[in-house]
Amino acid sequence: MNHRAALLFANDRFYRAFADADMEAMAALWAPDGPLTCLHPGWAPLTTREDVLGSFSAIFEGPAPPAITTIAADVAIHGPVGIVICYEQIGTDYLVATNIFRQEGDGQWHLIHHQAGPANEPPPQNEDAPDAIN
Amino acid sequence: MNHRAALLFANDRFYRAFADADMEAMAALWAPDGPLTCLHPGWAPLTTREDVLGSFSAIFEGPAPPAITTIAADVAIHGPVGIVICYEQIGTDYLVATNIFRQEGDGQWHLIHHQAGPANEPPPQNEDAPDAIN
Repeated sequence: MNHRAALLFANDRFYRAFADADMEAMAALWAPDGPLTCLHPGWAPLTTREDVLGSFSAIFEGPAPPAITTIAADVAIHGPVGIVICYEQIGTDYLVATNIFRQEGDGQWHLIHHQAGPANEPPPQNEDAPDAIN
Repeated sequence: MNHRAALLFANDRFYRAFADADMEAMAALWAPDGPLTCLHPGWAPLTTREDVLGSFSAIFEGPAPPAITTIAADVAIHGPVGIVICYEQIGTDYLVATNIFRQEGDGQWHLIHHQAGPANEPPPQNEDAPDAIN
């Protein structure tokens, strides 16, 4: 699997873990050390691994999340850092997200930053068809 | 100037260019080549240098922007990539932003990605005092 495919695969794993409310997968996906940051819509910035994982735990323990659908709109690789920009559809809401990954020595991409914010409109129709996550 | 200070300086230059509606400074700040992405609140993702700079040009040609204030909340450096998370205050609105920079061979940090989204609350009072930009 090339770097770009592996990066998209890691991005898909993030949304799969989110859709499945799978804390074990989510914890394995985020980088084990180093600075981590997460900007959930409307939340204050989270800047530690403990706070980031705690936020997903809190979300997963909340009401059953609606199905989440994602469209990978853009991938960029800069040395050991990969940036994925994508749309998220959660219920009837559309969001746009920045997901930043760092490649470890074993070639695995680990998440180091996530931001999602509201989009006013759904993605353009000429984008790839959305991949249903659940 | 160390890498971290130079990165924060580049982030300040971004907001200075924004506050001054200075297209020349904005064009010089964004990386001259390679993939660039920009997620303005409520806009579709912009994925080319032409579209990114065009968006700032359109914003600068709009109504006079209110004063912008920023608080740098977090800096992380991963090889050639620097990530700055900060609050933005524009008028009475608070936003949180992800700004990603790439370090060039001459040590200069250039912007490769920007996302801003609404924050529900102002930054915590125990953060650094905001730096007025204009």
